Amino acid sequence: MTKSDELASVVFPRGSEIASNNFAGKVWLARLVTDGVFGCMIGHVTFAPGARNSWHRHPGGQILLVTGGSGCYQERGQPARMLQAGDVVEISPGVEHWHGATPDCWFSHLAISTHIDRGEAQWLEPVTDQEYGRSGG
Amino acid sequence: MTKSDELASVVFPRGSEIASNNFAGKVWLARLVTDGVFGCMIGHVTFAPGARNSWHRHPGGQILLVTGGSGCYQERGQPARMLQAGDVVEISPGVEHWHGATPDCWFSHLAISTHIDRGEAQWLEPVTDQEYGRSGG
Repeated sequence: MTKSDELASVVFPRGSEIASNNFAGKVWLARLVTDGVFGCMIGHVTFAPGARNSWHRHPGGQILLVTGGSGCYQERGQPARMLQAGDVVEISPGVEHWHGATPDCWFSHLAISTHIDRGEAQWLEPVTDQEYGRSGG
Repeated sequence: MTKSDELASVVFPRGSEIASNNFAGKVWLARLVTDGVFGCMIGHVTFAPGARNSWHRHPGGQILLVTGGSGCYQERGQPARMLQAGDVVEISPGVEHWHGATPDCWFSHLAISTHIDRGEAQWLEPVTDQEYGRSGG
């Protein structure tokens, strides 16, 4: 199975490329649930190899459900956690963190932003190449 | 690809068989997120061919993200909607509905129960064979 075959095996859509300074590398977002009646928003995010987001925090918390590929997640001051399909990451409100693909593999996850009435993600500084390298990603 | 291969391709776990009068046929549940800090609970549900749940409603609403197989979803008084991998179902608070597998194929979905502070699912009568047959499932 090639890398492109693996990407095609993910059941949720890739969506549109994100144009934002809060991401390094190519990242795509498909918005799955945006209706405020549920108090949460759901997107499917796909990172190209080596792509990641900046350090950030969610006032209402966020849950990641990994749908494919190989990635990593790191909270400030903690070792990075390697991620693969089926993994669940619970990001408590206010916790500073970043996530992204490993250098050689794409990575995709559902992102469920909870308690959205508490406000949008608060973006901080980019993850440096040194931090990314140390993550083992 | 055989049916069992397809089931193995779903990235989230099958979990344990549910023992409940609110389900007809074999149904499995893996609890993925149960921490109340997020205001929602997430499970991965797998139905054997022909299995379905009873009519019910969620005081806080629920979102289904279909991960594999072939299923159907019906709201009271509405035609059934056929479901396959990648489909999203937004179930508004209080809406009476049921979901389950088609007669000849397994079915799996993530179930995200929202606003869980509003209370647990309220279970009603079973879906009759006549209702199930009319659904086109």
